[in-house]
Amino acid sequence: MKAVVYKEPFKVAVEEVPDPQLQHPNDVIVRITSSAICGSDLHMYEGRTAAEPGIVFGHENLGIVEEVGAGVTSIQQGDRVVMPFNVACGFCKNCVAGHTGFCLTVNPGFAGGAYGYVAMGPYPGGQAERLRVPFADFNCLKLPPGTEHETDFILLADIFPTGYHGCELAQVSPGESVAVYGGGPVGLMAAYSALLRGASKVFVVDRVPERLEKAERIGATPINFAEGSPVEQIKEQTGGEGTDKGVDAVGYQAQAGAQQREEPAVVLNSLVDTVRATGMLGVPGLYVPSDPGAPDEQAKRGMLLVSVGRLFEKGLRMGTGQCDVKRYNRQLRDLIIDGRATPSFVVSHELPLDEAPKAYEKFDKRVEGYTKVVLHP
Amino acid sequence: MKAVVYKEPFKVAVEEVPDPQLQHPNDVIVRITSSAICGSDLHMYEGRTAAEPGIVFGHENLGIVEEVGAGVTSIQQGDRVVMPFNVACGFCKNCVAGHTGFCLTVNPGFAGGAYGYVAMGPYPGGQAERLRVPFADFNCLKLPPGTEHETDFILLADIFPTGYHGCELAQVSPGESVAVYGGGPVGLMAAYSALLRGASKVFVVDRVPERLEKAERIGATPINFAEGSPVEQIKEQTGGEGTDKGVDAVGYQAQAGAQQREEPAVVLNSLVDTVRATGMLGVPGLYVPSDPGAPDEQAKRGMLLVSVGRLFEKGLRMGTGQCDVKRYNRQLRDLIIDGRATPSFVVSHELPLDEAPKAYEKFDKRVEGYTKVVLHP
Amino acid sequence: MKAVVYKEPFKVAVEEVPDPQLQHPNDVIVRITSSAICGSDLHMYEGRTAAEPGIVFGHENLGIVEEVGAGVTSIQQGDRVVMPFNVACGFCKNCVAGHTGFCLTVNPGFAGGAYGYVAMGPYPGGQAERLRVPFADFNCLKLPPGTEHETDFILLADIFPTGYHGCELAQVSPGESVAVYGGGPVGLMAAYSALLRGASKVFVVDRVPERLEKAERIGATPINFAEGSPVEQIKEQTGGEGTDKGVDAVGYQAQAGAQQREEPAVVLNSLVDTVRATGMLGVPGLYVPSDPGAPDEQAKRGMLLVSVGRLFEKGLRMGTGQCDVKRYNRQLRDLIIDGRATPSFVVSHELPLDEAPKAYEKFDKRVEGYTKVVLHP
Amino acid sequence: MKAVVYKEPFKVAVEEVPDPQLQHPNDVIVRITSSAICGSDLHMYEGRTAAEPGIVFGHENLGIVEEVGAGVTSIQQGDRVVMPFNVACGFCKNCVAGHTGFCLTVNPGFAGGAYGYVAMGPYPGGQAERLRVPFADFNCLKLPPGTEHETDFILLADIFPTGYHGCELAQVSPGESVAVYGGGPVGLMAAYSALLRGASKVFVVDRVPERLEKAERIGATPINFAEGSPVEQIKEQTGGEGTDKGVDAVGYQAQAGAQQREEPAVVLNSLVDTVRATGMLGVPGLYVPSDPGAPDEQAKRGMLLVSVGRLFEKGLRMGTGQCDVKRYNRQLRDLIIDGRATPSFVVSHELPLDEAPKAYEKFDKRVEGYTKVVLHP
Repeated sequence: MKAVVYKEPFKVAVEEVPDPQLQHPNDVIVRITSSAICGSDLHMYEGRTAAEPGIVFGHENLGIVEEVGAGVTSIQQGDRVVMPFNVACGFCKNCVAGHTGFCLTVNPGFAGGAYGYVAMGPYPGGQAERLRVPFADFNCLKLPPGTEHETDFILLADIFPTGYHGCELAQVSPGESVAVYGGGPVGLMAAYSALLRGASKVFVVDRVPERLEKAERIGATPINFAEGSPVEQIKEQTGGEGTDKGVDAVGYQAQAGAQQREEPAVVLNSLVDTVRATGMLGVPGLYVPSDPGAPDEQAKRGMLLVSVGRLFEKGLRMGTGQCDVKRYNRQLRDLIIDGRATPSFVVSHELPLDEAPKAYEKFDKRVEGYTKVVLHP
Repeated sequence: MKAVVYKEPFKVAVEEVPDPQLQHPNDVIVRITSSAICGSDLHMYEGRTAAEPGIVFGHENLGIVEEVGAGVTSIQQGDRVVMPFNVACGFCKNCVAGHTGFCLTVNPGFAGGAYGYVAMGPYPGGQAERLRVPFADFNCLKLPPGTEHETDFILLADIFPTGYHGCELAQVSPGESVAVYGGGPVGLMAAYSALLRGASKVFVVDRVPERLEKAERIGATPINFAEGSPVEQIKEQTGGEGTDKGVDAVGYQAQAGAQQREEPAVVLNSLVDTVRATGMLGVPGLYVPSDPGAPDEQAKRGMLLVSVGRLFEKGLRMGTGQCDVKRYNRQLRDLIIDGRATPSFVVSHELPLDEAPKAYEKFDKRVEGYTKVVLHP
Repeated sequence: MKAVVYKEPFKVAVEEVPDPQLQHPNDVIVRITSSAICGSDLHMYEGRTAAEPGIVFGHENLGIVEEVGAGVTSIQQGDRVVMPFNVACGFCKNCVAGHTGFCLTVNPGFAGGAYGYVAMGPYPGGQAERLRVPFADFNCLKLPPGTEHETDFILLADIFPTGYHGCELAQVSPGESVAVYGGGPVGLMAAYSALLRGASKVFVVDRVPERLEKAERIGATPINFAEGSPVEQIKEQTGGEGTDKGVDAVGYQAQAGAQQREEPAVVLNSLVDTVRATGMLGVPGLYVPSDPGAPDEQAKRGMLLVSVGRLFEKGLRMGTGQCDVKRYNRQLRDLIIDGRATPSFVVSHELPLDEAPKAYEKFDKRVEGYTKVVLHP
Repeated sequence: MKAVVYKEPFKVAVEEVPDPQLQHPNDVIVRITSSAICGSDLHMYEGRTAAEPGIVFGHENLGIVEEVGAGVTSIQQGDRVVMPFNVACGFCKNCVAGHTGFCLTVNPGFAGGAYGYVAMGPYPGGQAERLRVPFADFNCLKLPPGTEHETDFILLADIFPTGYHGCELAQVSPGESVAVYGGGPVGLMAAYSALLRGASKVFVVDRVPERLEKAERIGATPINFAEGSPVEQIKEQTGGEGTDKGVDAVGYQAQAGAQQREEPAVVLNSLVDTVRATGMLGVPGLYVPSDPGAPDEQAKRGMLLVSVGRLFEKGLRMGTGQCDVKRYNRQLRDLIIDGRATPSFVVSHELPLDEAPKAYEKFDKRVEGYTKVVLHP
């Protein structure tokens, strides 16, 4: 079958690879109809991880079940399903507690597995014609048959739940104000989720005009950090007080000010200043314990200078970590089915699999409006 | 009346000061029968804060109501009461949400007030014969008449709730394992609270033998960090996995290894390594945004090098801030009354007010077993 | 001053009564600009309670502060404020726990007080020119100056929070389906709140066409119980499964079928059938321990035949009781200010105080579209 | 193999039945070393259910894994395991939400399955030499090898988690007072759990002296309802107020007063009177929608006269339903392993499988101290 294969930094190719096979009674094979490119795929694409050439990318996957293992109970051939980017077993203590992003079974020696991602276990990605899905009863979310809402549903694999997770970690509640740092796909999904949860006022901080426009279109207040301190701008609009809650949808590649210099802790520390005493921070934005490309020695080891004194003085609480997609995907699916959520507004391009190399290149450069690409194998 | 007055670094005196007066209809005047010295009093005592000479110390106060303002409803002359160290109004949005440590009313321009503490508002302390208590209906917790449990009840003003708060921030639940860093009075109260909440296994990390002995006596497992990495010792005793939860009962004056060198983030970073993926950290230990005595320029501003990469990778959640005593003190009082809790085991000395200068000196030097002193004016 | 005074069953009059006075340092006097008539006022109006002639009605009150007691801290003359219908002290253990509807201070011998309501304490109502508000710092919610949103804000006194409370008791969460029994003002507010909280599908059960139309207009699905079993209709629209959650916005005067015969437990038992196993029921609809007008002896004592067997078999959880308005009113106010909520769509009439007798009569008969009346003294 | 087979009302026999076989790749076969008799087995034994002759009893099972299906990942031959009485799939929406007692997969058409119980699915019981366990990765809880704590661990299958569940439904928290109605094995486990969770005062209501003695021995306060109204006795010991929380560990076969007449709602209604306003009730005690032996026509259909008026007036919340054992069994196991819990104090008899007929007879008659029997095949 054809698949998107990582060749070297800044280069992927669509190549023939072996078809996936059922390896375990609980596996299914899914024929992929949609697979999205994620911002975190670019970390590998840019050579900023330990990813080796040959890896098949793609952890946001949706398709039709083609083959079903003998132990699978609830999934049948022909079912249309979307998979969380996390691979999870469903029975370890972390899965049972809802922390499916930290499964102890699927990637021995580490808490958490994923498709098509370096160090996340032996699971080829879904930017391909077919995908093996382990523990299929647990990992497949059934969708209505047909092709309706395809572009909304594919976002259930990662970014819609991930944005929502930021709000959950910050316990965003009706009537609260929220500052979302980052207006990329995850940031927009976080702002969208905050509004779905009843927030009264949501700020989105970015400096890319298209992102800020999208934020405004969904009902959020755009804050352009190139035009002045985002903390001050938000305080001005909250009676000097700051917001009740904050979401970091940027992570360790954060850039400070107008100069675009990387400053890995700038978003975390801005959130500490933006959120009022007793508030909460949700941090779905990625931080890593090892970043060879970091601007200083400490940051290369994931050690960042955090304003702990201020954090404590304000009594802030903070939740971090990658999203446990399974905790939210069913409910978010139902919001889509019932017409209450249409997250596909963040998708900029839908392309055939063959155009993946071009899509990666343009998405990586953020040119021609490439913000979120869905591939259709 | 007599009171403990701060004179200069490393010097307090018992002096005559004016008696407190009712200043507002909701005030009461309490004749103090017990007032404890807190580790955080030593920050001022050592001259490591902006505290000016003349301040009356004492935020852990218990006594008998002597005078009652015209607006007070539920408190009467003769009532025996203990006050949270936090001064709180009871009606601002933070108090209503239970965050009485971050009251927006009592210390304008800041979230939170306290008795006898620099920058915490115009409230003289209770290491004195009398104390003015504002918003008395909200700030007085009634106790049974008499003198029974006096040494247990005085701990309701701060350290018992503060230790408990560490467990609450970490959501310590029955059957969980917990690592408490710090075996001082707050750490021991955190360990004691964890056991009261049903933790299955509690570790207390310190290197002072008396503290470790006390930890063992209440049912915790002592970990002497002078004898090797506490992270490794705890992992060894948890099947290599680490604990479910962690509590930082040390704060910014943490010392690393056997050398007793201050390393302000060592406890936070050790907790990140000690607690397993999906765990939670409760941080009642004090961190400050300005510490002139800190070992480096960043730490002087409360900026600490935190292993954010690892924290995120493990999906940890963290709660911080000083304790909202009012959220817990009634329930903890009832545990004392019903004979289910006896926190007074941490008290080392009970002395008359006149001996405060000696008590401060010895407690500051940690000599002669001075770990927790209660003054009886 | 002029006030709405209860004379006898089915008769109120606007009469001169003595002006309220400051009775306690924590009181304020409010000049009422809006006071709404509540469905629960009709219980007294119809003579179906122990209310004695002479009582001044009105527990939904909004106005301008005219006089301020010496102990009041945060409220000033000229402030525009809305009061929860509950009178609460702010410092008893129930208030501190957020259960301000069950204050132990304001109505000795009973948990909970209110303005202008039989057995709820010595607090005349606000369908009058002026109102005394005790514990003013706690009981007054400040509003922006002016007259904007007056008709939305008055609903913060009771029915918007009460509808919201139904959703809170049922823990209505994003993506869930909810059945609201009752399309009166509280039921519509419950449905509106469910949608604000992100419910995916909300059903409103009633048989009055205007109510069902309003339900549809806000995005809910109307279910006319005169056209067939509401349980069956809802199951049909939820794949045979029933809803995740349910709200009883009817209470003890529930009527069954098309015959309009009172059957006090019909809504509770319908909810047990409507909600799927593991679901939750929120019951803000009023049930009383003594109802002289009830259809049978048991019901007269508040004893109802409940399908406990089915309730248990499905593992349902249920929350009941009158709303703790203070827990929600600030956040709901902010949704109004930020333009995210406009609950005034339920108000049918705004009238001068003098027209209260007519308003009561027509509202009680449910004629001429009288569904929710706001009086402007 | 040998198994306890239901023959007719009041008669079981130990007979040869076919050995269980692996039927699905996710099954295991367990050689039973301990299987307890449950009070709910007596419902079938007494002929008070629709159970047909031939059914093999036993839903509290512990043993050694003998055979392992090809799809099982985490369980191996020789593992010592204890199974929740609920059979659950681990991947349906109820299981994912933690409601494993209401699995939608294992017993089509009903929410929830169990071993050896009428209407709970095609799962023979474990009062036998061997047991088939479906979805073994999810349903087996691993125990330390050997035979240590066997009598504590067997209680993890049902009654220890079920008692704990009562406390969880009532959200029993440190410092609270709790009334547990019923001093049988589940009631004692509820009281024990309340104390483990830090309750300050726990009452156990029963009239059997041995039960009340056991309650006292674990630190609870015994209340003999044969000596006067339990409500009044408890109010006397709580300052007239009643308890914060309540647990119904009796269910529908409740008896009133000294006369031992069945009155199915007496415990529920007593709890409404016992628990103070704003409190919570946990109801793990069984109620059924169909009880042919009930004392009246309504009760035969599971319809009980409940004091809804009082329940609402007090703003009580109530949680019901059979226990989701999987939510608690791991943590409770760890309390046993770490020596913090020893629930086996409720076990009165340990007998070989052959003595099951005698054990049923004596347990049913509550003679010779038969309160909790563990069979060892």
